Amino acid sequence: MATETRQRQADRSRGTRRKLMEATVECLVELGWSGTTTTVVAERAGVSRGAQLHHFRTRGELVAAAVEHLGAESVLHLKERAARLNGDSPEERIPAVVELIADFYASDLFTAALELWVAARTDAELKTVVVPLEVRLGRETHRLAVELLAADEAKPGVREAVQITLDLVRGLALANQLTDDGKRRKRIVRHWAQMLEAAL
Amino acid sequence: MATETRQRQADRSRGTRRKLMEATVECLVELGWSGTTTTVVAERAGVSRGAQLHHFRTRGELVAAAVEHLGAESVLHLKERAARLNGDSPEERIPAVVELIADFYASDLFTAALELWVAARTDAELKTVVVPLEVRLGRETHRLAVELLAADEAKPGVREAVQITLDLVRGLALANQLTDDGKRRKRIVRHWAQMLEAAL
Repeated sequence: MATETRQRQADRSRGTRRKLMEATVECLVELGWSGTTTTVVAERAGVSRGAQLHHFRTRGELVAAAVEHLGAESVLHLKERAARLNGDSPEERIPAVVELIADFYASDLFTAALELWVAARTDAELKTVVVPLEVRLGRETHRLAVELLAADEAKPGVREAVQITLDLVRGLALANQLTDDGKRRKRIVRHWAQMLEAAL
Repeated sequence: MATETRQRQADRSRGTRRKLMEATVECLVELGWSGTTTTVVAERAGVSRGAQLHHFRTRGELVAAAVEHLGAESVLHLKERAARLNGDSPEERIPAVVELIADFYASDLFTAALELWVAARTDAELKTVVVPLEVRLGRETHRLAVELLAADEAKPGVREAVQITLDLVRGLALANQLTDDGKRRKRIVRHWAQMLEAAL
């Protein structure tokens, strides 16, 4: 009985945490960093300020956790989509994978992260939270790209080609913030995929 | 005499305008968008609020003009550096030009523009000023890259290769905002320049 109660409490706690993180991402995307205050997030999540403080002591901690949470969910989603890709030949697989990675970037994850990164640039305290997060996300995304592209980084030039892929889709995602750049992005991604295939 | 007086007044007015725009860029880079208020900019520029209002009616107008001004100056600087490049063979010229373009992006111009773009995403009024500016800067940068690379866009794949160059350096510039990514950038740029040379 006591175990069940503890279990229920733990579930509720995890649920509260998740609601707060999801409301935070929504706020970042809709209102930007300046509009994403702890008060607005708590209201939107339907969570009391006390419960919020129990989970996240500062705004920076909350936002960084939210971006990391969304990052982890997006990685799972990307892996699921990659697992469903048809075709095993590099000519079919590489363009499809590059398109998935470009979509992974041109998403709410990127927009939310961008708000956080830009705010952290001129906020020393926030920066101490965000820099390690950037390093972790960067490493994880690189590892994921290597895996999905079946890239052999021991071959000369392959590591650089994977990095170019990630820097390129980051640049494309940035070009998508104010206006819909989807059509141009598709064309660029297709073209890069051909060059990448030759490089791998 | 009257002509001389009018000339002096026009010079003074241009000087005031320039001081305001330069102070705005400094503020954006140091303090970010939220810290770049018209009051802070006027103080830093040593310009009265009245004189400031005479030149720029709103904060959005001031910041957009400052970014456009810095963009024009940066283009001139880039052209000067490109004119001094040694070597006319593509093997020498292309890596040097790509490095210049990457430096052009990983600069205060990019940082200031990034602050403005991100703020405009969630500010409808600001967005109406920034979207046309983004289009103008994008076109001008593309034209400049084509010229400096002596790229023949009539050849298949060349236009896309130039666009990949610009999207890539934009992604690299973003990776440089929180930490100094200069060493990795240099390596990626060198590698891309080889691929670009083959594509052109």
